[in-house]
Amino acid sequence: MAVRSDEIGFGGYTLLQEPDSFCYGVDAVLLADFCAAVPEDTVLDLCCGNGAVALIAYAKYHPGSVSGLELQKEQAQLAEKSMELNGLSDKIRIVCGDAAEIERYFAKGSFSLVVCNPPYFESGRGPSCEDSPRHIARHESSTGLGGFFRAAAYVLKSGGRLAMVHRPERLADLMDLSRACGLEPKKVQMVAPHADEAPNLVLVQFVKGGGKGIVMLPQLAVRERNGGFTKEIDKIYGRPHKQNNA
Amino acid sequence: MAVRSDEIGFGGYTLLQEPDSFCYGVDAVLLADFCAAVPEDTVLDLCCGNGAVALIAYAKYHPGSVSGLELQKEQAQLAEKSMELNGLSDKIRIVCGDAAEIERYFAKGSFSLVVCNPPYFESGRGPSCEDSPRHIARHESSTGLGGFFRAAAYVLKSGGRLAMVHRPERLADLMDLSRACGLEPKKVQMVAPHADEAPNLVLVQFVKGGGKGIVMLPQLAVRERNGGFTKEIDKIYGRPHKQNNA
Repeated sequence: MAVRSDEIGFGGYTLLQEPDSFCYGVDAVLLADFCAAVPEDTVLDLCCGNGAVALIAYAKYHPGSVSGLELQKEQAQLAEKSMELNGLSDKIRIVCGDAAEIERYFAKGSFSLVVCNPPYFESGRGPSCEDSPRHIARHESSTGLGGFFRAAAYVLKSGGRLAMVHRPERLADLMDLSRACGLEPKKVQMVAPHADEAPNLVLVQFVKGGGKGIVMLPQLAVRERNGGFTKEIDKIYGRPHKQNNA
Repeated sequence: MAVRSDEIGFGGYTLLQEPDSFCYGVDAVLLADFCAAVPEDTVLDLCCGNGAVALIAYAKYHPGSVSGLELQKEQAQLAEKSMELNGLSDKIRIVCGDAAEIERYFAKGSFSLVVCNPPYFESGRGPSCEDSPRHIARHESSTGLGGFFRAAAYVLKSGGRLAMVHRPERLADLMDLSRACGLEPKKVQMVAPHADEAPNLVLVQFVKGGGKGIVMLPQLAVRERNGGFTKEIDKIYGRPHKQNNA
């Protein structure tokens, strides 16, 4: 399979990607930004894929350490190679394994922050139906959404945060399944393709053992009507914003 | 207490209000619009107050019948008087009673649509702390949010809808407590004071026995930066929209 090396635009780092299989999108960049890691954080990416979120979050916030767990062997190997290429093998450690068996890989309460960009589609729903890496990355398989919450609750210390990106279609599941694992939804941000369109992504921060009450953030719009990115998105990507009144 | 008669701006109807106690706001108008009643509907307003939502929803959609349940005797009497004044006593019936004792007033499965603008603040939270009508209307007392879901689930027939307006702060409770009563969240719309500010209201439609999966609607902004109402809000109020590029 063809492998491409892409500059991620943060810290001069590059990421190896297989365009035929899976390339990261705006959701990964938004999640890496939204997680708001601090230097004291120990971070786990529960669904790290080719390592995009782990690498961008590291470049943005320089947390103490980052680990990435990935079910698909090829993606995990690619992520590992990217971290080597960037000289970050001691900072970002990739583990190939299933979040449903989290106890095999990580100790209970060993992380302060978990990030997760889980498969968006329930098994048997959504587009395509193959056994391809793209299908596996996009569909819940052995580990459903509840499984990721269980895994996050296991590895997080009390008061630790989980940052997740998902589709608003699953909003009720996000609120319901998290609480069942002792993770309380605390911050919600909707993301719309354009300001006047329906949101198609939602960012949620959960806190292990947190009290009730959600802080709602202003909606993020990805693009302006003229096709360019909005000021807010350019800021998240660390790019200068072109004023364009076309 | 001083009583004022206000034109609601729909169908030439007027509503009696006590400015010292409680006047309806934009949330009531949004809920009455969002409920999307049809002529075949039998509608119950679970927290009808002075009858604003019941009257506006009737004026907009002409459902077959509307009932309103209100805990506070003075508000229920005022609502009843408004319906008489408008010659609608045969169409909109007001009952004074507690949603926690719903079985005393209405038969199981007797409505196709429930609307609810419940008190926004949990007992002991939010502003003020008196025994005033305003306080009771804004704070959960005997009936918490879960109690309103239980009452709605009781009076709704299978496949019936519940339309509710609340604060995004309670989003997790809205998703979680509804499901516990067999009401599935199906439609969500955030409402922000201005397009670039955090939403401060959320409209949710639940369906009794509905399947999983939420349709997210485009965010509603109430006002434009120049202070005027947005096109969308003027449309909901049935007013002409003044283009204003100030």
